[in-house]
Amino acid sequence: PLPDHGVYTVFVKLDNTKLELLHPLGEKSPIQGFLDKKPGGGMHHICLEVDDIKKAIQSLQGKIRTLTPEHMIGAHGKPVVFLHPKDCGGVLVELEEASSAQQHALLPLDMF
Amino acid sequence: PLPDHGVYTVFVKLDNTKLELLHPLGEKSPIQGFLDKKPGGGMHHICLEVDDIKKAIQSLQGKIRTLTPEHMIGAHGKPVVFLHPKDCGGVLVELEEASSAQQHALLPLDMF
Repeated sequence: PLPDHGVYTVFVKLDNTKLELLHPLGEKSPIQGFLDKKPGGGMHHICLEVDDIKKAIQSLQGKIRTLTPEHMIGAHGKPVVFLHPKDCGGVLVELEEASSAQQHALLPLDMF
Repeated sequence: PLPDHGVYTVFVKLDNTKLELLHPLGEKSPIQGFLDKKPGGGMHHICLEVDDIKKAIQSLQGKIRTLTPEHMIGAHGKPVVFLHPKDCGGVLVELEEASSAQQHALLPLDMF
């Protein structure tokens, strides 16, 4: 349970990626709107790891909008930014900066 | 273009996975219904590689329904089976058998 972020999370670790299972927690969960539209569930977002989130945000300028001008600290304590689904074929995409020490230990893609 | 399967595909290869971009081809494309429901696009399915698709199908019995009783040969020439979205939290999941020779060369997850 991550009450500050309004979600329960469970990670399913695979060899080269991980699947994040999400469930709403509390009355103002940021994923409740998604379930209101899709009561049977579905894929919420994909997450791609990047080396340097500031450089990644710069490289998108004029091409893909970010939902916030700067990165935030995400539910897992790492710098993240979300990209505008309308600029990504209808898909909500999260970029997450992995520290170089973690890069090879961490699994690089999470979804749902 | 894969006219026999009614889709154009483009693969974006990442270090540990690949993203499959799909676009309808022809009048009876199997993905047209998805776009009719979501004209702005979205995530169509995820694909997980397995070592042995027959064993994988057996292991799901009584837990997760498959859309066909046996595997088929997919758009990329490999044995595949789709799992019922209602048994997978609203997510269409494809299992694909990778030959052991290919396993380390291939990128294990494709999506969209």
